[in-house]
Amino acid sequence: MARTFIHGGTVVSATGSQPLDVLVEGETIVAVLQPGSAALGADLAASADRVLDATGRYVIPGGVDGHTHMQMPFGGTRASDTFETGTRAAAWGGTTTIVDFVVQKPGERVQDTLAAWHAKAAGQCAIDYGFHQIIGQVDDESLKGMSELVAEGVTSFKLFMAYPGVFYSTDGQILRAMQSAAELGALLMMHAENGIAIDVLVEQALARGQTAPYFHGTTRPWQLEEEATHRAIMLAELTGVPLYVVHVSARQALARIAAARDAGRNVFGETCPQYLYLSLEDQLGAAGFEGAKWVCSTPLRSKAEGHQDELWRYLRTGDVTTVGTDHCPFCMKDQKELGLGDFSKIPNGIGGVEHRMDLMFQGVRSGRISLERWVEVCCTAPARMFGMYPRKGVISPGADADIVIYDPDGHTSIGLGKTHHMNMDYSAYEGFEIDGHVDTVLSRGRVVVDGGGYLGRAGHGRFVKRDLSQNLI
Amino acid sequence: MARTFIHGGTVVSATGSQPLDVLVEGETIVAVLQPGSAALGADLAASADRVLDATGRYVIPGGVDGHTHMQMPFGGTRASDTFETGTRAAAWGGTTTIVDFVVQKPGERVQDTLAAWHAKAAGQCAIDYGFHQIIGQVDDESLKGMSELVAEGVTSFKLFMAYPGVFYSTDGQILRAMQSAAELGALLMMHAENGIAIDVLVEQALARGQTAPYFHGTTRPWQLEEEATHRAIMLAELTGVPLYVVHVSARQALARIAAARDAGRNVFGETCPQYLYLSLEDQLGAAGFEGAKWVCSTPLRSKAEGHQDELWRYLRTGDVTTVGTDHCPFCMKDQKELGLGDFSKIPNGIGGVEHRMDLMFQGVRSGRISLERWVEVCCTAPARMFGMYPRKGVISPGADADIVIYDPDGHTSIGLGKTHHMNMDYSAYEGFEIDGHVDTVLSRGRVVVDGGGYLGRAGHGRFVKRDLSQNLI
Amino acid sequence: MARTFIHGGTVVSATGSQPLDVLVEGETIVAVLQPGSAALGADLAASADRVLDATGRYVIPGGVDGHTHMQMPFGGTRASDTFETGTRAAAWGGTTTIVDFVVQKPGERVQDTLAAWHAKAAGQCAIDYGFHQIIGQVDDESLKGMSELVAEGVTSFKLFMAYPGVFYSTDGQILRAMQSAAELGALLMMHAENGIAIDVLVEQALARGQTAPYFHGTTRPWQLEEEATHRAIMLAELTGVPLYVVHVSARQALARIAAARDAGRNVFGETCPQYLYLSLEDQLGAAGFEGAKWVCSTPLRSKAEGHQDELWRYLRTGDVTTVGTDHCPFCMKDQKELGLGDFSKIPNGIGGVEHRMDLMFQGVRSGRISLERWVEVCCTAPARMFGMYPRKGVISPGADADIVIYDPDGHTSIGLGKTHHMNMDYSAYEGFEIDGHVDTVLSRGRVVVDGGGYLGRAGHGRFVKRDLSQNLI
Amino acid sequence: MARTFIHGGTVVSATGSQPLDVLVEGETIVAVLQPGSAALGADLAASADRVLDATGRYVIPGGVDGHTHMQMPFGGTRASDTFETGTRAAAWGGTTTIVDFVVQKPGERVQDTLAAWHAKAAGQCAIDYGFHQIIGQVDDESLKGMSELVAEGVTSFKLFMAYPGVFYSTDGQILRAMQSAAELGALLMMHAENGIAIDVLVEQALARGQTAPYFHGTTRPWQLEEEATHRAIMLAELTGVPLYVVHVSARQALARIAAARDAGRNVFGETCPQYLYLSLEDQLGAAGFEGAKWVCSTPLRSKAEGHQDELWRYLRTGDVTTVGTDHCPFCMKDQKELGLGDFSKIPNGIGGVEHRMDLMFQGVRSGRISLERWVEVCCTAPARMFGMYPRKGVISPGADADIVIYDPDGHTSIGLGKTHHMNMDYSAYEGFEIDGHVDTVLSRGRVVVDGGGYLGRAGHGRFVKRDLSQNLI
Repeated sequence: MARTFIHGGTVVSATGSQPLDVLVEGETIVAVLQPGSAALGADLAASADRVLDATGRYVIPGGVDGHTHMQMPFGGTRASDTFETGTRAAAWGGTTTIVDFVVQKPGERVQDTLAAWHAKAAGQCAIDYGFHQIIGQVDDESLKGMSELVAEGVTSFKLFMAYPGVFYSTDGQILRAMQSAAELGALLMMHAENGIAIDVLVEQALARGQTAPYFHGTTRPWQLEEEATHRAIMLAELTGVPLYVVHVSARQALARIAAARDAGRNVFGETCPQYLYLSLEDQLGAAGFEGAKWVCSTPLRSKAEGHQDELWRYLRTGDVTTVGTDHCPFCMKDQKELGLGDFSKIPNGIGGVEHRMDLMFQGVRSGRISLERWVEVCCTAPARMFGMYPRKGVISPGADADIVIYDPDGHTSIGLGKTHHMNMDYSAYEGFEIDGHVDTVLSRGRVVVDGGGYLGRAGHGRFVKRDLSQNLI
Repeated sequence: MARTFIHGGTVVSATGSQPLDVLVEGETIVAVLQPGSAALGADLAASADRVLDATGRYVIPGGVDGHTHMQMPFGGTRASDTFETGTRAAAWGGTTTIVDFVVQKPGERVQDTLAAWHAKAAGQCAIDYGFHQIIGQVDDESLKGMSELVAEGVTSFKLFMAYPGVFYSTDGQILRAMQSAAELGALLMMHAENGIAIDVLVEQALARGQTAPYFHGTTRPWQLEEEATHRAIMLAELTGVPLYVVHVSARQALARIAAARDAGRNVFGETCPQYLYLSLEDQLGAAGFEGAKWVCSTPLRSKAEGHQDELWRYLRTGDVTTVGTDHCPFCMKDQKELGLGDFSKIPNGIGGVEHRMDLMFQGVRSGRISLERWVEVCCTAPARMFGMYPRKGVISPGADADIVIYDPDGHTSIGLGKTHHMNMDYSAYEGFEIDGHVDTVLSRGRVVVDGGGYLGRAGHGRFVKRDLSQNLI
Repeated sequence: MARTFIHGGTVVSATGSQPLDVLVEGETIVAVLQPGSAALGADLAASADRVLDATGRYVIPGGVDGHTHMQMPFGGTRASDTFETGTRAAAWGGTTTIVDFVVQKPGERVQDTLAAWHAKAAGQCAIDYGFHQIIGQVDDESLKGMSELVAEGVTSFKLFMAYPGVFYSTDGQILRAMQSAAELGALLMMHAENGIAIDVLVEQALARGQTAPYFHGTTRPWQLEEEATHRAIMLAELTGVPLYVVHVSARQALARIAAARDAGRNVFGETCPQYLYLSLEDQLGAAGFEGAKWVCSTPLRSKAEGHQDELWRYLRTGDVTTVGTDHCPFCMKDQKELGLGDFSKIPNGIGGVEHRMDLMFQGVRSGRISLERWVEVCCTAPARMFGMYPRKGVISPGADADIVIYDPDGHTSIGLGKTHHMNMDYSAYEGFEIDGHVDTVLSRGRVVVDGGGYLGRAGHGRFVKRDLSQNLI
Repeated sequence: MARTFIHGGTVVSATGSQPLDVLVEGETIVAVLQPGSAALGADLAASADRVLDATGRYVIPGGVDGHTHMQMPFGGTRASDTFETGTRAAAWGGTTTIVDFVVQKPGERVQDTLAAWHAKAAGQCAIDYGFHQIIGQVDDESLKGMSELVAEGVTSFKLFMAYPGVFYSTDGQILRAMQSAAELGALLMMHAENGIAIDVLVEQALARGQTAPYFHGTTRPWQLEEEATHRAIMLAELTGVPLYVVHVSARQALARIAAARDAGRNVFGETCPQYLYLSLEDQLGAAGFEGAKWVCSTPLRSKAEGHQDELWRYLRTGDVTTVGTDHCPFCMKDQKELGLGDFSKIPNGIGGVEHRMDLMFQGVRSGRISLERWVEVCCTAPARMFGMYPRKGVISPGADADIVIYDPDGHTSIGLGKTHHMNMDYSAYEGFEIDGHVDTVLSRGRVVVDGGGYLGRAGHGRFVKRDLSQNLI
């Protein structure tokens, strides 16, 4: 088996950082070593097939993005990144595992939809991938199917309190799905917005002629995210299921999550870079139809109301558990444009799988979070949350050799003509400058990105059969 | 350098556990290896000077007890464990580092007291030790001395809101010391009880003829711990100093700490096994003078009021950061007996340095906390909190080879004639049965406890020059 | 006009009590006087047509019960008290105004239902009455009708988050109704229980063979009341409508209401004597089918969980605004018995309109609330809440002469053969003993109850055209 | 006895308002009447000695200012208003009762100090007055004296957590005084600021050359008010004493009070107009020495931090119980000027006894509070709080005829050359314009202010022997 030796770098974990060498054999980390130790002979480097010098740089676990929607069907169109283009972009950005969402629609068997997603992803991915299952129709059949999925390594199930007529589940359905998940020990993921009330607001706004992208934000007020979040927490409390609230953007919703966590409940919140950096005023409110670029749900929130600052705070204090991207890209042309003259027809989603590690590192640079917390929320915590630890999310012998060499003295400019490999005709973060750089990326021992070059290939990535969550309290 | 190879065990860290081998060279861990890896030759075991088989057992970082008072002067007597007997008992129990308190009394220079404590400990300790500094007299001289101490690796300073006339600092003195510590980046530790009010209650109780040990508890009600805790938090907020509240026993005090942490402040709470397991009713309220065994401050709290359960909950949710022992043993004979007929004269303190790892493992067994959290609160978090990471608190190359092989299938009976090596004529945990056992203990590469035998020696332990806290958010 | 002079008593108001004489002329209080004042001639008594000696007794405003359901249709049956029997019982108990609920069912015009209720009540009532309107079908027609109702003195509208298929409104309908009410300045009343989730629990319980009345309680857990209460608060927050949550029984639901009130929102909570005195364990859990007597929604709550005590506390601190009865009586025979073998078929409701003043006075006696608070929550606050002040709810010139002379030294035994004039074949409070007694009751100047005799008549009571709420902050 | 008839006005109480006539005989209200009632003869007006036409105006209880310091000794000077000038100014402003503070200094008997204050006030006051007692030295003698004072109608005792060396009590003294007050049922009033810590900040600021009035504010940060407030609440909780926190200015302190009240404790907060209208930035931070005009403790708070808005909110929600003035005027010349070059020497205090009713009415005008709440916080609640109800604080037969006729269509300009009768050479509210006007003021039946003329006289005011608080929950 090929042997790779990474030396000279500083390994960063969720609990601290220290100078360490790393030995990879085949796809696996086999040893972590004190630099310069005589114990194992000085010639480990000499005997290696490949030596990577990480001097002056951080050696971190490959990023784990627990929230992507590659080529997701939506209305008449589908998310613009395929598993191939999307995972390649992820690799470019230092993410070596994604967990994507299988979509069940009414009338379909969950097992069949999982099979379909396996078919889409197989042979396409540059990096490893797992699946969550969206339950679009909670009924006896679907509930029964959940145990099969858990056995196949799909251990988390997502429901929607939004999107009536599409993904929406009633509270009764939610209760039943939670009961089933609790029995299996599986994780229940929730899109927490009161979609029934939102639809009324949307209809009223359109009737008033408020058709611009900005009104996507105003018709999804924080109250309806806070409400749904609280409702999900109470239903979870009734059933004992661990609850993971995806893409939280309202500080009031996070306050409910924090309160539940203080009370010792297994409730977890995910946020996304867009909610930490972008806002209702600055992006959604852009002139003309520009705001369509940032139409996603939950929506970007008002900076004046302080959501972004408080989200950073909750991230620091630990009440945000993970940072995912909710990567769900649509091009402006032909896709976002479907909503010209009617914001409610704009496909919902922002692409960002490539920039998460950089954007969050900028949070370290600006003093928002510590270096350890960066690794924790981007790598270790999602791996634990979704049952992939210690295979993923940690630099440790026995783990998959998913490794990023990150240069804190490097620089990354984000934008269409720059670090952008996603299949989108715009960048949601156009013009962002990052004081750091992803230098080298290994996926299961293979160098897929190095020094600005892409060395990966479609099909290298394998399906990760996940265990139950390892992050419960 | 001697080489020790530990194989077959499951290494547990704060984030997870996995089967790993550990190679020690001299005093240091030099490698962590995937079991059975061909990479490093199969003969690592063969080439080792010593091989420890950890099959079926946990391999964890040596325990770090951030709160001990060896041979502390108190009234006319002193704590009954010397650095020699106390650190030996600690080693028996799987603790390989203590941080003890240097005591400054009015009229003394802090630098001189540190020197005195160095003299007491030098050549006596079985395991490594660091020092916190108690500032008994906050004045210009003492405040100036703080920077020298930080330079010498004493990076935390303790004040008392209790014990007027002895250690007590006024709020003005506290504010000044906090300002100085904040400037240095040092940690401010606080004994948070309103001693001024307590003294009134004690005097009134004694005047009513309430002289039994039980009244030690009733004259230190939770309100006066909660109050002082909140006061310390507010003063810390004013100055920006990180605050560490020692030996929290009241659930209401922890609620204040949790609220401060939710707000993003650097506020930390420590609790002790006695507050998790023992109570006002069952121990302090024992017949006759028996309760004297458990006279300590903060006092044991009422089980009926639910303190113990809530402390376990806060431990689980992370709002208790560390578990120390506040080891401060006094014998019944001649020491505790000083308070016969007047509880206020009973020397305050409980010995427990030997039992912390076991007692907390029992919490894993009873489902109170996870295995990871056990290692975190007993080893990793105190090491980070007190600036000793990654030298202490983690199984990682480069770290001191402080290692415990813990047997989850073993058994430990606590009590005077059993696992008790502390210099006390009683055990505060007499009769406790633990479903686990400390099998082998390494301190900086040396096996000091193995298979029921003690192999350590006084003087092996060295002073740990600590950095600033690595646990701030 | 006939003149009545009440002298010698202590008038109790929401802010205090003092010895005062009261002069009534016709239907109205025309003067309140200092006893023995020479100012108005000593012969007021002499010139009066009737003199009532209230020496040693309290003179209080007639009770206002803001929550009754006289002869309400429910399933195939209807509540057993007609407007005639129910208002007579109310008078017996010192209540001189009720506000009853008009029921709109799908397909009916709200205006028509109001007309129907007017027809039922006209000429039947012993005391004055107003109407709230239940909106059973939120649509354009109903929303338009609301403004007409407000103009006719029906200024509060009730929706249900429970009872899917019967009264249930979706969150979208709730939002729309709240918007309409907010525009009119009207009050939105809410039955706050998550009926969708409850129906799942009920179905599951029945499938498990849990058919006894006790399971009515366990299938409506506090989480689903707390959740719905919070949801209603958030929707109200969005629209700015004042919200009145009826029959709150879970302490956690009241905690949400208290939090909203602290934040300055117009959110109000009503509780009922049954939730203060009765429990899941003692009543609903009675042997056999006995528990059916206490089947009502929200359900009686567990005493072990402390709901009753906390409800009394919230009543004392002011976060419960009013005490109504939710009087909705059904006989055991032929009515409650519909649910033999299936608790979900038991008609929901408890009768208590006659006992509210007594039961709450017992709270004064037991030190739970003050004398002033008794008058406030039973008389003044509901009058203000529902726009009837100062016509109702206060002893003041210009007010309707609705007056109760209450004897704190009297005694009242509650039960079927005792003080029970409601049309029920059982008493929910059988065996309760009250240390107080309703001696005399005046309704608009007419003595309707006196010294144990009933002097009222059907048809004396008139419809009260209500203003908008006077209780908003 | 002289008879006065007030007709045509709208009487406003804490619970509502309605058109009522009021008959006064001698010093007492003897009847409240429905306007135009035939019952009492049409000729009440004709038979009256004096008829006051209140058409179009509010008839409210005379204001009760529970917090004044007339001619209080402070340093080498004394507050510039004597009982004569101060009570006259109060009358001008519609306040008919003050409760002033008797000051005990170390070495004095509380009984003697009360006698001294009686001597100062006797024959001087234009309106009625009561006394609170400041305990400047908590010792056995003083504690024993408390029961005598209660018997003499001084039922509230004030302690200071600020002003070390002057009024300051230790926590032990506070505890003892609270125990004594609790036993007597008396009210404990607290100046809640951590004076020990403040003194350190003041010394440091002066050492830095920060001598301007502005630094009076910055050296008394909200944390030290919040802290002391919380400490007082906890000590009160221990003893069961009802606690009244005077002059709360920090929103965080009110949050602690609100939390205690939610928990059912007898904790009350007073605020003052200066904290609702004035700020650190706009007043204390005025150029040069101007800020000295607004040096008072607790200090004016930062508008940017939102204290003023939140205080209004707490006032609306009921967590502020009363509004007093803390009237303690000092002239700029010779008095405030003592602090030229050293803010710590500026006499602490603002005069406002004359403007409270107007300033708070402006809160009604601006929609901050309701009309009823205006009367409640300025009249009814302080009367109840301090045991003077129903003699004071209500328009009701039997009450003292302390009555204000207030014109909502009138106008009041505040300032030195305008409505200013206090003995001050500046106005703290210079330039404030009020949309309302105090037209007529009766004190115990005597018209003391009418149509812009002063008809009162020194010596009319009598001492009010107060009962225990009537405002406890």
